[in-house]
Formats: sequence, structure tokens, C-alpha cells
Amino acid sequence: MAQEKKVEQITSMETDFAQWYTDICRKAELVEYSSVKGFTILRPYGYAIWENIQRLMDAEFKKTGHTNVAMPVLIPESLLKKEGELVNGFAPEVAWVTMGGSEPLEERLAFRPTSETMFCDHWHSVLQSYRQLPMLYNQWCSVVRWEKTTRPFLRSREFWWQEGHTIHETAEEARAETEQQLGCYADFCENVLAMPVVRGRKTDKEKFAGAEATYTVECMMKDHKALQSGTSHYFGDKFSRAYDVTFTGRDNKLQYPFQTSWGASTRLIGGLIMTHSDDNGLVLPPRIAPIQLVAIPIAAHKNPAVLDTVRSILETLDAAGVRTKLDDSDQSMGWKCAEYEMRGVPVRLELGPRDLAEGNCCLVRRDTGEKTAVSIEGIADAVKKLLDDIHDSLYAAAKKNLDDNTFDLNTWEEVRDMAQGRGGFARTKWCGSLECELAMKEKAGVSSRCIPFTQRGTTGKCPVCGKECETDIYWGVAY
Amino acid sequence: MAQEKKVEQITSMETDFAQWYTDICRKAELVEYSSVKGFTILRPYGYAIWENIQRLMDAEFKKTGHTNVAMPVLIPESLLKKEGELVNGFAPEVAWVTMGGSEPLEERLAFRPTSETMFCDHWHSVLQSYRQLPMLYNQWCSVVRWEKTTRPFLRSREFWWQEGHTIHETAEEARAETEQQLGCYADFCENVLAMPVVRGRKTDKEKFAGAEATYTVECMMKDHKALQSGTSHYFGDKFSRAYDVTFTGRDNKLQYPFQTSWGASTRLIGGLIMTHSDDNGLVLPPRIAPIQLVAIPIAAHKNPAVLDTVRSILETLDAAGVRTKLDDSDQSMGWKCAEYEMRGVPVRLELGPRDLAEGNCCLVRRDTGEKTAVSIEGIADAVKKLLDDIHDSLYAAAKKNLDDNTFDLNTWEEVRDMAQGRGGFARTKWCGSLECELAMKEKAGVSSRCIPFTQRGTTGKCPVCGKECETDIYWGVAY
Repeated sequence: MAQEKKVEQITSMETDFAQWYTDICRKAELVEYSSVKGFTILRPYGYAIWENIQRLMDAEFKKTGHTNVAMPVLIPESLLKKEGELVNGFAPEVAWVTMGGSEPLEERLAFRPTSETMFCDHWHSVLQSYRQLPMLYNQWCSVVRWEKTTRPFLRSREFWWQEGHTIHETAEEARAETEQQLGCYADFCENVLAMPVVRGRKTDKEKFAGAEATYTVECMMKDHKALQSGTSHYFGDKFSRAYDVTFTGRDNKLQYPFQTSWGASTRLIGGLIMTHSDDNGLVLPPRIAPIQLVAIPIAAHKNPAVLDTVRSILETLDAAGVRTKLDDSDQSMGWKCAEYEMRGVPVRLELGPRDLAEGNCCLVRRDTGEKTAVSIEGIADAVKKLLDDIHDSLYAAAKKNLDDNTFDLNTWEEVRDMAQGRGGFARTKWCGSLECELAMKEKAGVSSRCIPFTQRGTTGKCPVCGKECETDIYWGVAY
Repeated sequence: MAQEKKVEQITSMETDFAQWYTDICRKAELVEYSSVKGFTILRPYGYAIWENIQRLMDAEFKKTGHTNVAMPVLIPESLLKKEGELVNGFAPEVAWVTMGGSEPLEERLAFRPTSETMFCDHWHSVLQSYRQLPMLYNQWCSVVRWEKTTRPFLRSREFWWQEGHTIHETAEEARAETEQQLGCYADFCENVLAMPVVRGRKTDKEKFAGAEATYTVECMMKDHKALQSGTSHYFGDKFSRAYDVTFTGRDNKLQYPFQTSWGASTRLIGGLIMTHSDDNGLVLPPRIAPIQLVAIPIAAHKNPAVLDTVRSILETLDAAGVRTKLDDSDQSMGWKCAEYEMRGVPVRLELGPRDLAEGNCCLVRRDTGEKTAVSIEGIADAVKKLLDDIHDSLYAAAKKNLDDNTFDLNTWEEVRDMAQGRGGFARTKWCGSLECELAMKEKAGVSSRCIPFTQRGTTGKCPVCGKECETDIYWGVAY
């Protein structure tokens, strides 16, 4: 009964996907609105997910030689303006500091929308020799972009992210870095968040302001819309030239280094919600879940050995590296079940006097509701295997959603019908022209997602101009 | 020779302490100035120290039930102004955002100088019942305060910190939290940073704007000045009332919770530099050092087994949890020694063909320069013991500096003479009046550091007004 009551609080996905999403964000206590318009608060449970993302991703960055730094949060307008494309891309959404204490500033300062400029300014002052290259930097911070409409995790005026910035001796090395870091995001989405990705390159229209090339991983949400989940940019030496970043090369001549940047953000949390959750609330992929298993003793007051056994099981699990929680509060069983379903805890462990007599406990999966009796002996292996199984089946379900809703189409009318119908990704040929890309947006209501790395190697007609061409491209409606 | 050259780059402590400090900050590559006035950059090596501080401190916070959150970085002026004392304390140093994109904002937004107001505003919207209490929150972030003069780590317009904010059902619980968190800072300074502290309470003049009581840990630097290294504040229900934060109590009546906040910052890095370093550069306490041991193979080209053995030693040490680095670059031995001395790496391991023949390697301590031959067998235990010994002797030296330069004085003239001479902490009696505190500042040039928790329990004369009184107080010149 308590469970039904709790579930009633969430709008169903079918009724209103957007409201369902917001309900989960707020009722699972991931995020709350603040009284600063467009700014959200990451609450303990939401922040704990972000901490897990940071911890795991940061370890990957460090394995490939990246180090963290902290750059100033405010950027002088003149510095921001040195590279024209970047500032034109971001100017409309910059927040400006104009007063320090009680005095107006001589030059206004931008709250960083991204930090290419600051990194370049720093490299300008510290880089001297090829011996210092590559410089492989990253920072974890928040950025501000003055968005008009905002949604938790997906689009807010402040969001939390990491921004990697690197410079290299050669273009080849920088390109390899760009690809390596995109691979890092792809692996993270798939192996940690159980979100299958399409890897590809952005069109010139969709690439990052100032970049020579932008690579992206695109995920499909349960409503068949696309979420860009991580991007990696190759700049060539464009910023180096604009910010006068130089080094003495092996040939003893002054050279410009080649640059990359790459970022992923709290938007990933929005992505995993819309990939895995259901009408009972959040469903968390096990590898990122702050609590992987919640243990609920049953009728423990009748039999003190129940609570003792649960405690000893949790000790075993903790020692095995499972993140656990005990709920022996006086709330009803129904309330507890609904609560941890809402919060997306992957496994619920129940143990009562009868289980105890049999030497078993009961494991309940959040994703399928499936219950299994498991011997208390060997519980750690059973739970670890179950967590992996849950990851695999979440991934498989998301992959099926992606595959079932990716369509090979030939004409813009077909793409339009898809977009106006159930949605999804349309794979078509593309002649490569901006005109056809813009026409597709106008006629079919979709934007290009990426030119996938995996190309069919066939030829066909551009769905807009009909020209024979080879390039495959993905279209979709994006968050 | 290379070593001498490198050492020449640092101003000696005796010649100019301030310049010595700045030289270390920059030449050990901890920090660099940016082109934004008053803002600094934390470089990889400096940020790695901050990461270790964060990791260890965060684990302590979590042990006592605290969770991390993220609050908006911008605070509407009207919200900031609800509690008068706080805004009066911070208004002169707030940076204001007045434009979002191309449009002026209706209300200007403060870059957070501290976040009591945002936490209160959040609690106002989410707190309902005593069952939700205590709420034990913390956030790691940067804050901006528009300081007029700045110095790396000690005072800059942006700095990185953690700010804990908690609310409690009763005043007793909140007071206990305030004391617990001060104890956490004290333990951290002493056990991790090897910085002995004086624990105490701030006078009303020196306490945090809006706090009912501020507790502090004060450390003594090598120049005998004081560094406030962590503070913990008790607010009573003052902010709760100002921000209308209420809950339904056990008696079913609406009540105001009692509140605390507590913070420590990148200033700790400045503190550990000025506590332990010397004229050869940085000296890092081992528990915080990004690299605890650097291994330098000697004449490895003559004997490939040297490098193999060093690698195998490092594997053993890594597995034992020691943070190591191998430098087998082609730089000279002199250059390497100077480099890692400058960077304060606690232990240098040298191994050459002769050592290898004897089954030994040589461990060199950064703090004392002492060299010891150690058997390669059992190297992990030897290194771990050495790291602990270094910690202990850094702590002992700092404690001696504190003890030798803390003076029990009776008159303001004595305090003045101390301050104008070698400096130090003066312990005197104090009548408790603001007048005498202000007079001490004017006449002797010192400010009150704290009313120490450890009181002598004697009576004596206030050094300014001569009144008989019991309270012990510390005076000093502070950063």
C-alpha cells in the first residue's frame, strides 16, 4: 500500500516523459531547484553519483598521464576575445562580473563558460621547450552559461564538469589524444553507465566553436531522443596562434603546439536516468550506484539473530567492495521497498527468520523485480555476480532500444515521418553540404548527430539534394 | 654544481622570508600567477597536494556522517542581505555578476564568498521534520573575495576550500558538531601536515561575521607569525530565524534548528610550506606528498640490472601503498638531486652497481639530508618506517618552534618588544574587554589569536588595564 502511494507520486513515462523525468530527479532527491533562477542544487544522493563518476573517470584520465589543475574562474573580456570564433560561440550566454567589492571593474570578467582561453594564457607564460610537451591537463569545476530554458542535469545555468586541455608537439599526437579521450568517454558510458553509444564526428555546423574537428558519443534515451554525452575537440594550432603559445622545437625553431580539449558533465546523470529508469522511479547502473545493495531485516524484533546475521552479511559484502546500506528503521516493509525502488538501489537483500532457518537470504533486483533465494555462504560472490548481471541486462536493454529505433532511411520525408512518429535515429547518406543539413532541420525537424566512425562503405543518395554520395550520417532530435 | 645553481634561484629565508616563500611556491611549480589580477593557478604539483588534502579530509568527514552537495555559485543580493551581520562582514569583498548574456540582470548576483545563505535557503525549502535532522553537509568548491593585496595560497581573490554546513535539533548537538569538526582540523594539521596547533576560541572581535562562537586552530610559521588554519562556527538559531528555516519537533511544534559551519582551504598549503621548508626549497610532510619517494638509478647504462632492480623495488613499494616516481632521464645526478629537493620529495632512493653488489640501496632524507644504506630485502618496511620518522621529526621541529617562541608575558610593553623583535605568540591574561584588545593591537601591533582551550587556571593582570582576571589569551602577528 505504501508502495502504491509512493509510485503514484511519479508521473508515468507514457503520460508525460518530461514530467516523469523531473519527478524522478526531485523525488529520488538527486536535485532541487534553488531560488537563483536557472540554478540547481545537487543534493547528497545526486552528488554521490557525481562523486562516483568523478572518481572512476579521474582514475582513467590519470592512467593515461593526465594531471589535474585549477584555473581562475573569471576570464578578462579581452582575453576571451582573442580567438574570435570561440567568443562568438559563447558570448550570448556569458555571465559578467562587473563589480569587485564596491568598485566597478576596469574590465569586465566572464564567469568561465569553458577554459580554453585560460589554459592558453597559462601555456603562453610557462611553455618554453618541446621537452615540456605534451602537457596533459584536466580540471573538475563548474561553469556558467546563461541558458534561457533549463532542466535538471540537462541544461542549467551552472553545471559541473571536467574539462581536459592538452597541447602536443605534433598534430598527429593531438589528434590521437582527441580520439583516445573520446574512446575514454565511450568506454565509460558503456562499461560504467551501461549506456551504449554511437561514436562519430560532428558536422562543421555542429562542432565546437573554434574547433577544427569535434568528436562525440551520442546516446539514445527511452523517448528515442539523442543525448550528446561527451565531446572531444581537435583545435590544430589555431588557439596557439591566437594566444601566442610557442615552444622551441627539436630543430631549435619556435613552433606552435597542437591542442585538444574534451569534456563530460553532470548531464551524464540526466542520461542515465532517461536510459534506465522506469515508472517506479530511478534505476541506477550498479557500477555508479552510491548504494549497490540495501539490506532489510524482516521481523528482526522476533528473532535477534536476524539482525546479527544481516550485519555480518553486510560486513562480508563491505569487505568485498560492495557499497551497502542497512535499513533497520521502524518504517514498514512496503515503505522501504518503495523508497529504495524510487532511489534505484540495484539490489535489495531481505532476510527474515524463515530465511535464516534455511541458511538463505533473498535478493531482489531493482531492474526486473526478480527475487532469488541465495545461500548466505558465498553471498559476496553471488552479489557481485548479480551486480554484473544487472549491468549487462541494463546495457542489453538500452542497446536494444538503440538498435530498434535506429532506421536506415533514404528520403527526408521518411526522416520527417520518423521524427514526427516514434522518434529515433535516422541513418542516411549525406552529400556533405551545409544547405542539405539546414534543409533537413527545417523539413524533417532533426539535427545531425554525427558522422559515425563506422561507415557502411556503400553509396547512395543524399536525402535532400539526391546527389550520389558515400558518407553515412545520423539524424535525430536532441536534448 | 647543478645543485648549487638551482639553490641559488631561491632567496634565503633569512634574507627575505616573503620572497623565499614566493620563490618556493613558484619554483617548485605549485602555483603560478594568472593574467587575471589577484587570481592564481594551481599547477599540477600544487593541485596534487590539494587532491591529497581533499581525499584524506573528505574521508574523515564521511566517517562522521557528512555528505557532499553542490550549491549554486551565485547568490542573489536580497538573499545575501537577509542576515545583516554576515553581509556587512563580506560586502566590501564581494564580486558581483550584473549581466547574463547581453542583458543586465534585474538583481545582481554575488559570487559566493561563503555559502551559509544558500544552505539556509535550501533548508528552508526541504526541511520539515526533526526526523530529517541532523543534516550534515559539505561542499568542495572555490570562493571569491575581492582582496586588495594577494599572496599565493595565503590570500587570493579566488581560493579553493571545503565549507561544511550543518543543522541540528538542539543547541547541544550543534555545539558538539562545532567542536568535533575543530578537532578534525587539529588532528589533520598535526597527524597529516605535521603542523602542531593551538586550539581555542576567537574573541568576539575576531569571530566570523554572524557567528555566536568561532573556534580556531592556530599554527606558528617559521617566521614566528600565526596562520589560522581551520575554523569552526556555532550560529545558534540566528540564521534559521533570518532565513525562516523551521521543522516540526518531537513535541509537534515548529522549531528553529541550530546551525554550524566550518572551513579549511588551500591556505593549508601555504601553512605547510612556511612550517617545514628550507633554503633548498619545499619540504613536504610525507603523508601529503604527491611523490613520497623518487628513485634515481646510478650508472644504469653500465649495468642494466640496476634499472631492473630499481623497477622491481618500486613495484614492491607501490604495492605497499608508497607513492613513488622513477627518474631515469638523462639529466645529471646533480640536477636530479636539486630538482627533487626543490620539490620537497621526502625520500630519495639511489641505487648504483656497487649498492646492487651489496644488496643495498641508499635512502636520502629530504628534511635532514641523512643517507642510510638499506637492504633491498625488506625495503617496503624500511621506507614506510622512514616516512613515519620524517613525519615525526618534522612535527617535533615545528613543535619546538612553537614552544620556543611562545612566551608567557605580563605587560603590553613585553608583548610589543616580542612582536618588534623575533616575533612569536604571547600568552597573557585578558580582562575580556574589546577596549584592551584594540589597545593591544594599537600599542603592541598584535591581534588576539585565540582564547586557548587549555587554560592555566591561574589569575593575573590584564596587560593593558591591569585588572585581575583569569582568562588566558594568545596574541601574535597573523597572515
